[in-house]
Amino acid sequence: MKERVYIFDTTLRDGEQVPGAKLVTEEKIELAKQLELLGVDIMEAGFPISSPEDFNAVKKIANTIEKSTVCALARGLDEDIEVAARSVENAASPRIHTFISVSDIHIENQMRKTRDEVLTMVDHAVSKAKSYMDNVEFSPMDASRADFEYLVKFTQVAIDAGATTINLPDTVGYALPEEWGLMIKNLVERIPAFKSDVVLSMHTHNDLGLATANALAGVINGARQIECTLNGVGERAGNCSLEEVVMTIQTRYKDRFYTQINTPEICKTSEMVSDVMGLPVQPNKAVVGANAFAHSSGIHQDGIIKHRDNFEIMDPKDVGASGSSIVLTARSGRAALKHRLENLGYAFDKNDLEPIYLKFLEWADEKKQINDEDLLSLLQTVEAVSK
Amino acid sequence: MKERVYIFDTTLRDGEQVPGAKLVTEEKIELAKQLELLGVDIMEAGFPISSPEDFNAVKKIANTIEKSTVCALARGLDEDIEVAARSVENAASPRIHTFISVSDIHIENQMRKTRDEVLTMVDHAVSKAKSYMDNVEFSPMDASRADFEYLVKFTQVAIDAGATTINLPDTVGYALPEEWGLMIKNLVERIPAFKSDVVLSMHTHNDLGLATANALAGVINGARQIECTLNGVGERAGNCSLEEVVMTIQTRYKDRFYTQINTPEICKTSEMVSDVMGLPVQPNKAVVGANAFAHSSGIHQDGIIKHRDNFEIMDPKDVGASGSSIVLTARSGRAALKHRLENLGYAFDKNDLEPIYLKFLEWADEKKQINDEDLLSLLQTVEAVSK
Repeated sequence: MKERVYIFDTTLRDGEQVPGAKLVTEEKIELAKQLELLGVDIMEAGFPISSPEDFNAVKKIANTIEKSTVCALARGLDEDIEVAARSVENAASPRIHTFISVSDIHIENQMRKTRDEVLTMVDHAVSKAKSYMDNVEFSPMDASRADFEYLVKFTQVAIDAGATTINLPDTVGYALPEEWGLMIKNLVERIPAFKSDVVLSMHTHNDLGLATANALAGVINGARQIECTLNGVGERAGNCSLEEVVMTIQTRYKDRFYTQINTPEICKTSEMVSDVMGLPVQPNKAVVGANAFAHSSGIHQDGIIKHRDNFEIMDPKDVGASGSSIVLTARSGRAALKHRLENLGYAFDKNDLEPIYLKFLEWADEKKQINDEDLLSLLQTVEAVSK
Repeated sequence: MKERVYIFDTTLRDGEQVPGAKLVTEEKIELAKQLELLGVDIMEAGFPISSPEDFNAVKKIANTIEKSTVCALARGLDEDIEVAARSVENAASPRIHTFISVSDIHIENQMRKTRDEVLTMVDHAVSKAKSYMDNVEFSPMDASRADFEYLVKFTQVAIDAGATTINLPDTVGYALPEEWGLMIKNLVERIPAFKSDVVLSMHTHNDLGLATANALAGVINGARQIECTLNGVGERAGNCSLEEVVMTIQTRYKDRFYTQINTPEICKTSEMVSDVMGLPVQPNKAVVGANAFAHSSGIHQDGIIKHRDNFEIMDPKDVGASGSSIVLTARSGRAALKHRLENLGYAFDKNDLEPIYLKFLEWADEKKQINDEDLLSLLQTVEAVSK
């Protein structure tokens, strides 16, 4: 029995709060439509109390989107929750997501409250959200640095008040996969509702480069929703990358878990996010980077030509990439050169290829890449051309 | 007792084979000098057989570097190994790194040999390298997809022939932390040399976004060398990021492990790699991205102002970053605005701040970021200015 993992995209909320990435309403709506095509289960459309424009953007998204649940973020304050509720009231499937810190470091240094006072706030905030709609997500902020027994109590109060999803944020990107997985496992054991009608979710940050590993460690241990963004955009070092968790589940956990993401839309959505937010994707970004399927070393090129599985674990088409490419550089070998020449219509045996390869290396040491035109010029200089 | 983890940097080899990232010899030497300042234990300077220019670059690096071990890569072929040995013969501390595939998928589809034939090749290659120098690293390529019992035999043959480091590559970026960690654990149990004089290393790739998590899972289970690159550059989705593993060890495993990396040189080295290779670093890259220490949401800004630990787990100075920044956007709150105004010399009480905050939100909805000049103009429009 494969279990479903829900994908909660927060590109429009956590992603959009990146310095310089702010979108105008029309851009948010276009992106929301693409996220729906991508098949995200829930999209967090914004933080309506933060500004009048964001309220309007969330409202328009709620009016537009038909399949995905549209979620609005609210601090655990009456006004925030009321404004969030109004912003999504016309959605086909609305959700309010509210949050309160659970770690002593936040309770003491930021909120300046006692633990008991905070429990009362949790009950009040979730009840307030519940008065507007059934679908309420609640996050104990900074869960990874919280006292575990208090986290259990805190979570139980939120569930008793009606939360249908509990989302554990690793707010500062501090968690390690082994301890994060264990925390999830222990929480699922202590709170029976996670085995029936309440979904356990995670919101991991990438400050140590572990957001994807942490989210997956959580899934293995009983969590069933991942909060993530395209390209991993988000506050500071960003969030868990949607493309990484979805493709790892599809590539490595396919006997145990599945998502409903329409993976061939991944690259297109990634490009759109990068373009409208002005946040470039580095060439070596996993799954969606320009080089993610580019093979340049001689050994790898030789291997790929002989058998795709030698050096490739995903089919580029599965994520909507244009296909794997073999780039000729000074680190390329004879096999790749021979293959490319054959594509251009020139076949050589081993002996004839050797002088061409030596000339190719000379040229490649000068230029960073050798393209097809270069190769044709090169052939003319070597003479030994046999069509 | 804290254990040392060796950092093997392959920016100049696996990083340099990225399409378009090829360096000229002078650039390689400059980068090598910076890597030495950074304190990498071993730098893989190139793949000398691949081209005459790369041979010369490795030779010059070997002649220049005094503290780090300088390593040259060679396939398990006599000519490769001989050329590699010549390239580093004048190094203060030279190493040859040679490799042969261990997975059936490579043995059958790329090498087209039998398992027994390959074991003979392993013995021959390591012995050959050993005839030139004592410090020999051997990699069973595609270890993550190999049959475990064959991997044990293969590794033992390499150790018996004199390998001083065994490096397990997750060549195609296929491993999951839990299974990778288990493989390392089992290998350490089966091969006693890993508890005495032979170092177990890992070379992880980031195709699924798990390179850092896999390397750390290996360290916990007995590996003591990590192969990595700055910014995670490298073939396809790249390698394990040096800055991520080093800072995770320093931030989260400091009671158990340490490295000798001079962490305040991290950001400078990252920038140099990005500049000379022409490979941009995305703003949300962990540790070294432009936004890695930028706080933009209102709640986070408020928290950071009250107490740095609320939202920051690393001191930006520890990696040579210029410091955490608070960027004012439409998602910023009153606390951040008040703080920035105070820095500019303007103090407001709660009531006076409110009209300024509302005007600020209007402006921030229009502009992506509000800088200090904008704030001064804004104050003039609101009037209620009290110095």
